[in-house]
Amino acid sequence: MTIPTTRRQFLQAVGVSGGAGVLYGTMGALGLAPAAQAAPPFRAPNRSDFTLTGRSAKSVLVLGAGIAGLATAYELGKAGYRVRILEARDRPGGRNWTVRGGTTETDLDGRTQRAHFADGQYLNAGPARIAQHMVTLDYCRELGVPIEIFGNQNADAYYVNENAGALSGRQIRHREAKADVYGYVSELLAKATDQGALDTYLTGEDKERLLEFLRGFGAIGGRVADDPAASWRYAGTNRRGYLVEPGAGFEAGTPKLTPYPLTDVLASGIGRYFSFEFGYDQAMLMFQPVGGMDRIAYALEAAVGRRLVTYGAQVRSISNTGSGVSVVYDGPGGRPRTATADFCVCTIPPQVLAKIPSNLTQPVRDALAYPVPNATGKIGLQYRRRWWEQDENIYSGITNTNLDLATIWYPSYGYHGAKGVVVGYYNFGANAQAYAALTPAEREARAVAQGVKIHGEAYRTELETSFSVAWDRTRHSEGGWVSWPSRTSGQYGRLLEPDGRVYFAGDHLSHYIAWQAGAFESARKVVTDLHARVMSS
Amino acid sequence: MTIPTTRRQFLQAVGVSGGAGVLYGTMGALGLAPAAQAAPPFRAPNRSDFTLTGRSAKSVLVLGAGIAGLATAYELGKAGYRVRILEARDRPGGRNWTVRGGTTETDLDGRTQRAHFADGQYLNAGPARIAQHMVTLDYCRELGVPIEIFGNQNADAYYVNENAGALSGRQIRHREAKADVYGYVSELLAKATDQGALDTYLTGEDKERLLEFLRGFGAIGGRVADDPAASWRYAGTNRRGYLVEPGAGFEAGTPKLTPYPLTDVLASGIGRYFSFEFGYDQAMLMFQPVGGMDRIAYALEAAVGRRLVTYGAQVRSISNTGSGVSVVYDGPGGRPRTATADFCVCTIPPQVLAKIPSNLTQPVRDALAYPVPNATGKIGLQYRRRWWEQDENIYSGITNTNLDLATIWYPSYGYHGAKGVVVGYYNFGANAQAYAALTPAEREARAVAQGVKIHGEAYRTELETSFSVAWDRTRHSEGGWVSWPSRTSGQYGRLLEPDGRVYFAGDHLSHYIAWQAGAFESARKVVTDLHARVMSS
Repeated sequence: MTIPTTRRQFLQAVGVSGGAGVLYGTMGALGLAPAAQAAPPFRAPNRSDFTLTGRSAKSVLVLGAGIAGLATAYELGKAGYRVRILEARDRPGGRNWTVRGGTTETDLDGRTQRAHFADGQYLNAGPARIAQHMVTLDYCRELGVPIEIFGNQNADAYYVNENAGALSGRQIRHREAKADVYGYVSELLAKATDQGALDTYLTGEDKERLLEFLRGFGAIGGRVADDPAASWRYAGTNRRGYLVEPGAGFEAGTPKLTPYPLTDVLASGIGRYFSFEFGYDQAMLMFQPVGGMDRIAYALEAAVGRRLVTYGAQVRSISNTGSGVSVVYDGPGGRPRTATADFCVCTIPPQVLAKIPSNLTQPVRDALAYPVPNATGKIGLQYRRRWWEQDENIYSGITNTNLDLATIWYPSYGYHGAKGVVVGYYNFGANAQAYAALTPAEREARAVAQGVKIHGEAYRTELETSFSVAWDRTRHSEGGWVSWPSRTSGQYGRLLEPDGRVYFAGDHLSHYIAWQAGAFESARKVVTDLHARVMSS
Repeated sequence: MTIPTTRRQFLQAVGVSGGAGVLYGTMGALGLAPAAQAAPPFRAPNRSDFTLTGRSAKSVLVLGAGIAGLATAYELGKAGYRVRILEARDRPGGRNWTVRGGTTETDLDGRTQRAHFADGQYLNAGPARIAQHMVTLDYCRELGVPIEIFGNQNADAYYVNENAGALSGRQIRHREAKADVYGYVSELLAKATDQGALDTYLTGEDKERLLEFLRGFGAIGGRVADDPAASWRYAGTNRRGYLVEPGAGFEAGTPKLTPYPLTDVLASGIGRYFSFEFGYDQAMLMFQPVGGMDRIAYALEAAVGRRLVTYGAQVRSISNTGSGVSVVYDGPGGRPRTATADFCVCTIPPQVLAKIPSNLTQPVRDALAYPVPNATGKIGLQYRRRWWEQDENIYSGITNTNLDLATIWYPSYGYHGAKGVVVGYYNFGANAQAYAALTPAEREARAVAQGVKIHGEAYRTELETSFSVAWDRTRHSEGGWVSWPSRTSGQYGRLLEPDGRVYFAGDHLSHYIAWQAGAFESARKVVTDLHARVMSS
């Protein structure tokens, strides 16, 4: 029994050893309402599982050194499984990919880019943020990967929408937008409440408490006797920021008090961005490894053992042989090599795996063809000067826009440094496909032309170099992540079970798709399933 | 002319050189509505000011090596002023005070504490956070003090209120509270809007846009035909978090869907905490120096020149002598020493300065007695294990409570480390005075007893050591900061002018009281005033 180190593990451990009644009672003591039964906690295989039962550790061939593959090998290795990883790329991590100066990549269209970022500058081309509750942080802790806060939200970043009424194209700080929207929402709800429109739903005491809350929440005025229209007025607040900062002496500052008109704020659509910040997976605080997301991949690689990973080993065929698995892959010089093992854990993305010859069953092949790859892309723009900090007082965070950029990310590292890498777009779907269709130079030109609308000419004149990734055009990935049209139509479930001695793992086989947490959780499930099979045989 | 490096400085520079018309036009181009005239930008004195005019640099005696005093000496030193700082304490920073292992302090009641924090652990006893727009960050940049994000808000921290209805004493995650409050606010406003209660204020288009916004903002349902009560219902959301996390395979997770009842949420008063996060000075993202707030003080000390600061030099008297100033202070062994200079900048807090013999004029002495010191205190609790991360998935951030603790802060550094220092209370007024009246051991016992109500027994059993500060009982400070009953009654303004050759500086002479930014801004004002006088004489 491993010692539980997180609350979740603790609850699960209690649930397993003491039954549901104890689990629910413990949850109650921790302030949680009893509800569903947690699954058994993950328990890494242990060497004693073999030594105490007289069994011998099996060999496992892992296909793919992304997070799922590395985590699978890492956990199996704890028990002494003889693991080996084949990886088509020349680095670990898969979509966990940190682009630095010197990174070179040729995409599916034959376009080669070489990154010219300065020392210390990087772009997390794939995953870039970790929520506090995700198992990914537990692995950072276990592997000794230092973390720091990722600025997923910043009151001083902007919302900029085009074709959205009177505020089209306006740089609106998050703090301004929230002050105005919360102000108007509070004014309107206070008016309706005070006028009795909600008496069906609120007691007199509720109403007074709600009005008190709204006064603070919206920074609105109070009741004006005999004047409903003048009551509970939102007339701006210094939460919006200052035109002239408060300072010394008699400089009280000049707040940007005047709110945007209600009609314009509603027409602008900026309020639509707010709920992103409340999401279970996106609410601050979020984290990132210090020095780049691939610190996790390299820490896993080191924990597995570098010598157990074969890079440049693109898989050419996969065969269940009855007593094991046989995999043909590209060896040095492209010559075919064969690797065999008792079992295989395949983490190759389904849309890639579907094209690899194999004797996998037809239902499995059908299942691999079922999920839909998603287009997504990013560009890293290296600037010679951190103008967002120096000129605009924006230290990390994200600007949201309905321009095709979707988002601009200011770096959450290297504050006050000489240079910085801004994520010039991180977009999806049609926007991502439009950028993917361009050459890297064209992507840069388009991203800069759009970004200038938000940040002015510094966005162009301070630029030094860029590197872009279109995941649907990236070899060995062919998509950012997949979507399942249905999880209950059979295909998803088919891949949760092994096909002979071949198991499947990856974020696509979890409810954390597009998150490293999904890859880790999937790896844990496969390790658990495989180990149970070995221990019962 | 210094080169402006921030947008504010740029605007101010344009305003000065081009007049208000240019300033307003530039603001318009930057998306700012024209409004008030900014003050002239700060321009540090320059050596050429003297060499080009044939004047000689004057000597300035600075009293106090807090942020105001250090910044004054630093800026004057750029022009070659002969500066010297007298500091009563044995360290720079004043209230900018980072307590580490070995820190020893004896308070006004004769109670001596010695901190036993482990290497790398610290408590920022005074200022602990910096907003992006504050000049403090400009100084961090100029002085090369590395910064990192300070977790001022965290969706996974708690609100806990006692004597507040059915939810009394309940640990409610920020994310739960916001989901429920925003959900109910959205439901109520949508109902009122849809029922026509706000038709006086909203057009038909406004209404549809508002309803669309509220659906996303509150995660509420839609209109149910012929059933107003069932329309726009808030019935919980996975934004509240999960009882069982989403995971691999078919584990979709079990969200904590069931919201707290509207009446209970309103009675709990937890919504009152939300607006803190919208404040101009408190909205995320906030920052801190890496390694402790006193990195700023020590960087200033180094920039001024360590040899120009005399520590342990408590001031005994201050005299305008007509042609200069004469200050008597404690020299080695407590023997009186006298320092003289052309000018003096006194940054000693007014409540302390008022008790020091001087020949300052009676109006100045009256002004010094006018502001009211505020009580505030903190305790740092070092734990042998970071249970808030390991057991509760809380990585930095602040828990709010109506217990006398007011707030609990989880450290924004050392994530995943072996130990950590939690701020067990940061409170004001009566709560701070209550803790100040206790011995350090009693403070710890009280803070832990209260904290156990929030975090359970780990809050007691994992504790290793503590260090507490009561600013109103701290020598040379005698208060956390001051409040001015009025800024316009004459006393405040009196201290903005020199008394003879003695100038006054400090956050108390700014509109950023209790912030280092106020001390910096005040220092800049005094430097500007003093230099103008020297250059015009």
